[in-house]
Amino acid sequence: MSQKTLSELNACGKDDFVAALANIFEYSPWIAEQAAAARPFAGVRQLFDAMKAEVDRAPFELRLALIKAHPDLANKTQRAAGLTAESDAEQNSLGLDRLSDAEYEAFERVNNAYRAKFGFPYIVSVRRHTKDSVLRDFERRLPNDAKTEMQKSIEEICRIAALRVDHLVAGDDRLQVHGRLSTHVLDTHSGRPAAGIALELIELSELGVPRLVTRATTNADGRTDQPLIGGRPVPIGRYELTFSVGKYFAERQVPTSDPPFLDQIPLRFSVSEPEGHLHVPLLVTPWSYATYRGS
Amino acid sequence: MSQKTLSELNACGKDDFVAALANIFEYSPWIAEQAAAARPFAGVRQLFDAMKAEVDRAPFELRLALIKAHPDLANKTQRAAGLTAESDAEQNSLGLDRLSDAEYEAFERVNNAYRAKFGFPYIVSVRRHTKDSVLRDFERRLPNDAKTEMQKSIEEICRIAALRVDHLVAGDDRLQVHGRLSTHVLDTHSGRPAAGIALELIELSELGVPRLVTRATTNADGRTDQPLIGGRPVPIGRYELTFSVGKYFAERQVPTSDPPFLDQIPLRFSVSEPEGHLHVPLLVTPWSYATYRGS
Amino acid sequence: MSQKTLSELNACGKDDFVAALANIFEYSPWIAEQAAAARPFAGVRQLFDAMKAEVDRAPFELRLALIKAHPDLANKTQRAAGLTAESDAEQNSLGLDRLSDAEYEAFERVNNAYRAKFGFPYIVSVRRHTKDSVLRDFERRLPNDAKTEMQKSIEEICRIAALRVDHLVAGDDRLQVHGRLSTHVLDTHSGRPAAGIALELIELSELGVPRLVTRATTNADGRTDQPLIGGRPVPIGRYELTFSVGKYFAERQVPTSDPPFLDQIPLRFSVSEPEGHLHVPLLVTPWSYATYRGS
Amino acid sequence: MSQKTLSELNACGKDDFVAALANIFEYSPWIAEQAAAARPFAGVRQLFDAMKAEVDRAPFELRLALIKAHPDLANKTQRAAGLTAESDAEQNSLGLDRLSDAEYEAFERVNNAYRAKFGFPYIVSVRRHTKDSVLRDFERRLPNDAKTEMQKSIEEICRIAALRVDHLVAGDDRLQVHGRLSTHVLDTHSGRPAAGIALELIELSELGVPRLVTRATTNADGRTDQPLIGGRPVPIGRYELTFSVGKYFAERQVPTSDPPFLDQIPLRFSVSEPEGHLHVPLLVTPWSYATYRGS
Repeated sequence: MSQKTLSELNACGKDDFVAALANIFEYSPWIAEQAAAARPFAGVRQLFDAMKAEVDRAPFELRLALIKAHPDLANKTQRAAGLTAESDAEQNSLGLDRLSDAEYEAFERVNNAYRAKFGFPYIVSVRRHTKDSVLRDFERRLPNDAKTEMQKSIEEICRIAALRVDHLVAGDDRLQVHGRLSTHVLDTHSGRPAAGIALELIELSELGVPRLVTRATTNADGRTDQPLIGGRPVPIGRYELTFSVGKYFAERQVPTSDPPFLDQIPLRFSVSEPEGHLHVPLLVTPWSYATYRGS
Repeated sequence: MSQKTLSELNACGKDDFVAALANIFEYSPWIAEQAAAARPFAGVRQLFDAMKAEVDRAPFELRLALIKAHPDLANKTQRAAGLTAESDAEQNSLGLDRLSDAEYEAFERVNNAYRAKFGFPYIVSVRRHTKDSVLRDFERRLPNDAKTEMQKSIEEICRIAALRVDHLVAGDDRLQVHGRLSTHVLDTHSGRPAAGIALELIELSELGVPRLVTRATTNADGRTDQPLIGGRPVPIGRYELTFSVGKYFAERQVPTSDPPFLDQIPLRFSVSEPEGHLHVPLLVTPWSYATYRGS
Repeated sequence: MSQKTLSELNACGKDDFVAALANIFEYSPWIAEQAAAARPFAGVRQLFDAMKAEVDRAPFELRLALIKAHPDLANKTQRAAGLTAESDAEQNSLGLDRLSDAEYEAFERVNNAYRAKFGFPYIVSVRRHTKDSVLRDFERRLPNDAKTEMQKSIEEICRIAALRVDHLVAGDDRLQVHGRLSTHVLDTHSGRPAAGIALELIELSELGVPRLVTRATTNADGRTDQPLIGGRPVPIGRYELTFSVGKYFAERQVPTSDPPFLDQIPLRFSVSEPEGHLHVPLLVTPWSYATYRGS
Repeated sequence: MSQKTLSELNACGKDDFVAALANIFEYSPWIAEQAAAARPFAGVRQLFDAMKAEVDRAPFELRLALIKAHPDLANKTQRAAGLTAESDAEQNSLGLDRLSDAEYEAFERVNNAYRAKFGFPYIVSVRRHTKDSVLRDFERRLPNDAKTEMQKSIEEICRIAALRVDHLVAGDDRLQVHGRLSTHVLDTHSGRPAAGIALELIELSELGVPRLVTRATTNADGRTDQPLIGGRPVPIGRYELTFSVGKYFAERQVPTSDPPFLDQIPLRFSVSEPEGHLHVPLLVTPWSYATYRGS
């Protein structure tokens, strides 16, 4: 799907409208069809709310069909047969196309156990998650009853849809579907922002190998030019952010021990609010450091 | 060698004295023989100084022979043929009996390059080192000239000897050959020492896998009952000390995020003074922490 | 009263025993007289407990008389007429002999209001208090009923007595009547204890001028040779501990701003447990500092 | 002088231009007169630079006359006789109209000693200073020779002029004559910005009483709605910023001691760069806090 403006969607014919938004909800163009009548929309928010309202008022069978229209997570057969482009990109963003054997087995177990109990696939908005948190949430949801899980599935489907709308439709307003992870290094030895510190953000995994999320270097203000994660939800999960402070102080001829007491400083933390702003700063001297959840 | 008191060594016959101290300096009983004349020794310090003085005043050939009497590090052939019990225990303390392939190759390269240049083995007091620091020191020492390296070797041999004397001879005084690594966890959320925090000390390795040094749990005073490393030199090298703070705060019903912002907190630091006291405390809330090199 | 050993008190005649302990409870030698029969005491603790037991089992009238035997706080007429040496020293330790006008009026108001309501003087173990906390406790106690206040008074009297016993009687054991206030300065700019830092402890007062408690300079370990307060209860109240860090860093030629960002660092805190150990450390660079309630 | 736009000043007649800018340099309209020829100015910066260039190229006598046109600091006789409105406002901003006796004497001593040595008044851009720093700078400048002090005086006069230009002339650009002092309170007990913390900024004085600069309460982001000092130079000097954290934690029912270990937290620091941005945050729990020079 190529990006559209809200004005275009408000002005075009119904068929074009439906074609443009057919896969906002996976393989379910009926939602766009019914929402078309509510045009024109004052904003992207109103467009999304109108589509969501169609889902909410749909009868049981249609809601169940919507749920069943979704693919399994990380299912090789389905992936080989082809997913919607949206599902494919989403699953890849989580790394589901490059799982370790242990991870693959875990996801297969999840899909099978869930489908066996409920008769529909385990659905989660993977852009809001890491592999660990997908598996952790599964453990929490599996004991639920079918009614609760239908509701949970619809919620996740709406989260997926909101991200697809945000991606597809440009308007004056934005849906609140993105978060941000940022850092700041303050050199409390010299009382200045620490410029030129190399840092690396890793996503941790219980079952597989850590995954590099990004590398960056602090600028003159001790920050990174871009957020560590931004313009998307910050996936729920565990991370390690490592700062090369040994090199930084050595380049400034700060006296230290040999080897330096502090060299690579890892901060290990979890993300719990994908749409929030999480700030993880570092206050550092060659002999001490501190961090905290900032805002 | 079984432990002796200084009184016994002062009182016994010369042959017994030499037999007891024959391997303080590897395969070099002549040092004990010559030092015997200086008996009685007022303290362990005087005994060690007397033996060291014999080494210092020995002619070039004898000093060279002393150096050559030492085994290569981690040499499988020599280990198979048998080391002195002392060398064997020392090398094992460094983990030289269980190297990864990459580490083994690194040590073999070190031994060969060093021996090829100087004609004698690369000697280092392994109880003061980790594998990483042994290899790092080698890189620094290899460019030296032979005279410098003979002196360095004698210094290391005397450090080895001091540790062997400390181990073997009990007296009223002790040689200053031991250091200490300690920690302390202060819960600044409740304003109390953090009791019951599980922690783990790992020695890091550039080439092999991390090695578990110790596990412990903090006591009512937020400390460990025993130092993390004590009663021995603290090996020069890189370490990671990890604290299970997520579990600690969860057990105290402290409100936090899900997953908790902080769960396992790793502190990564280096030891540079094996005979010093290094204190690495943690000040922690569910949302912040700080550490510093204490004393 | 001159100091006695427990052995002496166990061995001497009853008259001497009573004479020695006559004022442990203010003007109430009958307590020592009745406790004498329980001799010999295994420890100072047992001696105190025996005297306290006599108070606890005394009839109402005797308990009331004990309470009434106490002087008002800071009453100039009574002070002119003469207090027991013990009361005089205790009141002076709180500074009741050198009150500001506002403080004097506040204490007079307290005495009069309390005596008007209950018919006996307001009693508090002044060695455990500052002027502020004496007045604060009064505000809390005045609304109580007479029965509660008789009990409170007896508790305070026993605290006074315990301190007098500790002062007077030397034995193998000590009553737990002393606390400690200590500090530690760690220079996290250089990674060492901060030696030679001048510091000053002030007791704050709502109504009068701050009172200097002690001045000290940190030693090589970053601590003071003596506790800031020790060998006595640490008075409940508000304090300010000020560290001259500007001079310290200037003497070490550490680059800073002009004037230095940090010069005199005040830490303002309260003491709430007179018999506890309160540790208030400072972690400091020229550009940052931190403190916490340590132990 | 009422505010003008740069366009107006570029377009108006020469007399109006001179009238508008006559007191940018104290009682020295000749500077505006000569600068008028350089119109039109592309920006406020260029206007100021043109005026400054006239001062720089003026002959010795004119520069001396410019210096002598300035009033003494805090001189009661001159103030009674009337200063330019600009000088009056500037001196009042420093509090020179309400000095303690000791301060008044200090300023009188400064004026007299300086004038006696150099034959012209002691000039300093008072908006960039506190009383303490004015007196401190005097102590540093008095030993200088006359040539150096003429230069220093001209520099200060240009700083005064720049602030007057910034105040008087509105254009698309601004001179860099303002700084900012800000704070931020992070509650690391709950992992959130601390909202609703009352705080107070005091300017300290060696000779007089502390002066209240501002009171504020932190907003939902833990910041103050306005900078503590902004829209002007931040006066060089010593400050104390006090946070009412005891009340904050009490209102949130956080368990603490009685009295609370921390209640009023004072941060005492100095400002050295009036045109810079100084950020002084507080990280706080009921049992610990930290601050640092941020940016």
